[in-house]
Amino acid sequence: MSLIALDWGTTSLRAYLLDSNGNVLDKKSALLGILKVPNNDFDTAFEDTCGSWLKNGREASPILASGMIGSRQGWTEAPYVACPAGAEQLAQKLIHITTKKLRKFAIVPGISTENSTAVPDVMRGEETQIIGALDDETSSHLFVLPGTHSKWARVEQNQIVQFATFMTGEVFALLCEHSILGRTMQGRDDDVDAFRRGCDYALTQAINTAGLLQLMFSARTLALFNRVPATGLYSYLSGLLIGSEILGSQALFGEHHLVTIIAEPDLARLYQRALSVAQQRANIAAETTTPTGLFRLARASGMI
Amino acid sequence: MSLIALDWGTTSLRAYLLDSNGNVLDKKSALLGILKVPNNDFDTAFEDTCGSWLKNGREASPILASGMIGSRQGWTEAPYVACPAGAEQLAQKLIHITTKKLRKFAIVPGISTENSTAVPDVMRGEETQIIGALDDETSSHLFVLPGTHSKWARVEQNQIVQFATFMTGEVFALLCEHSILGRTMQGRDDDVDAFRRGCDYALTQAINTAGLLQLMFSARTLALFNRVPATGLYSYLSGLLIGSEILGSQALFGEHHLVTIIAEPDLARLYQRALSVAQQRANIAAETTTPTGLFRLARASGMI
Repeated sequence: MSLIALDWGTTSLRAYLLDSNGNVLDKKSALLGILKVPNNDFDTAFEDTCGSWLKNGREASPILASGMIGSRQGWTEAPYVACPAGAEQLAQKLIHITTKKLRKFAIVPGISTENSTAVPDVMRGEETQIIGALDDETSSHLFVLPGTHSKWARVEQNQIVQFATFMTGEVFALLCEHSILGRTMQGRDDDVDAFRRGCDYALTQAINTAGLLQLMFSARTLALFNRVPATGLYSYLSGLLIGSEILGSQALFGEHHLVTIIAEPDLARLYQRALSVAQQRANIAAETTTPTGLFRLARASGMI
Repeated sequence: MSLIALDWGTTSLRAYLLDSNGNVLDKKSALLGILKVPNNDFDTAFEDTCGSWLKNGREASPILASGMIGSRQGWTEAPYVACPAGAEQLAQKLIHITTKKLRKFAIVPGISTENSTAVPDVMRGEETQIIGALDDETSSHLFVLPGTHSKWARVEQNQIVQFATFMTGEVFALLCEHSILGRTMQGRDDDVDAFRRGCDYALTQAINTAGLLQLMFSARTLALFNRVPATGLYSYLSGLLIGSEILGSQALFGEHHLVTIIAEPDLARLYQRALSVAQQRANIAAETTTPTGLFRLARASGMI
């Protein structure tokens, strides 16, 4: 029995054909993220992308999708499952859809949590990546999934028990493209010294108490006084924001965990570097953990 | 002897004709900020705006300007004076220019400071506003000058001894105009409850330790769960950022000072409201303190 595993996000659809052991037999990618599907006709978008796999004895293969496809703007809303949640809890809450061609199509719900003042946090898609990255069911893990909205998640006994979102990637892009800090930047080189310096500055507890709004102005004044070269400002600000995120994660989750980074290689290496400045141990997970996560969820749900 | 006092910033030039007691006899405003002066011909821009005042016995009136006109992109760079600095120190460091018409024209320098890790901070123009707002030479003051880049400054015995910049206004504008948080906002109403809620959330020490990148995501999730109305999100985020700034200022300057707010009335009231959420006393200074500051600096320098 094969499984079609879909990582269906806002901007793209990544599809994997898996064999009965979860090995990837084939994969496809299309710019058919949920905001780009014509007339919200997700059914046709799916058939156009994956229809060729569902032939020659594979007609009845089940399909499991994670990501923004389960959001309010997606195919069908898959309500958030409250933490703690692991593969078992998510598998029980899959949303089953009957497609035009009567496929067995299901969507993984996102997960939610609330802090001590009843302010919620959410993730959708990352929970599946985390489940795909788990390699040891007994111990505790701390994951970071850097990006536009970085997610930090603590896993105990195979369940995500707590997580938090940091808008690091989005704020960094805004500052580079639209702020006064971006105007003095020259290029986007990876300046390791400048990155470490920004990181170290943000991680200095006594400095950071003034908060990020004050901290980030250093990218202006250090340039003004020629203490960071204009070619290093991009890396300096990147280090500053990632350092600030790491300090925040340490406040939430503690600082003595081994951190597992799930990201594409360049970004993963930046976070590994920042975590080393923070003197926190880190390793990098396999780049693509979603197919494995979907395979495990399909197993847990009895779809395969 | 009259004085022409110029508040010459990045986007506009505000000019005041003062009598020998510092009273405003006349004022003008022109969209001739330093980035908008054709061919950087500041001399002509000044004559076009204020030439009509310099007649009928006022030909020899001295002129004193503060603001970005003294920056590297301005008429002549007036190097920063290091803190502590008050009217006397600044008056000694005025930069004198000989204009085409041989006017007595001087520029007030900005001021600089450094924190414990040798990261500088700067202000240019605000030092003159603060000097104009001082009404008691003996006691200590804490000022906030909210805006694109908010400045907080501590004054002891008439000297600015410490200050810090927060990029609150700029970050707020970026988030409203370009981020995912702006996309769910409906309108820009002043929703007092939502503002206070954002403020209170940012001021909760235990929450704020995760840092602003995490904190600001609450504007997304509270909207997602319908816990803040879409019409209140603008005010919620405004409160969140100003609250974060105030918490940062308390870390730097302590939380028991009376804060004097120097700003245009709407913004001053927002900060007064935020400071009341923070249970910190605040009063609002006269709206325009630059002419008085320039008058005092002209006196201290012997120009008048």
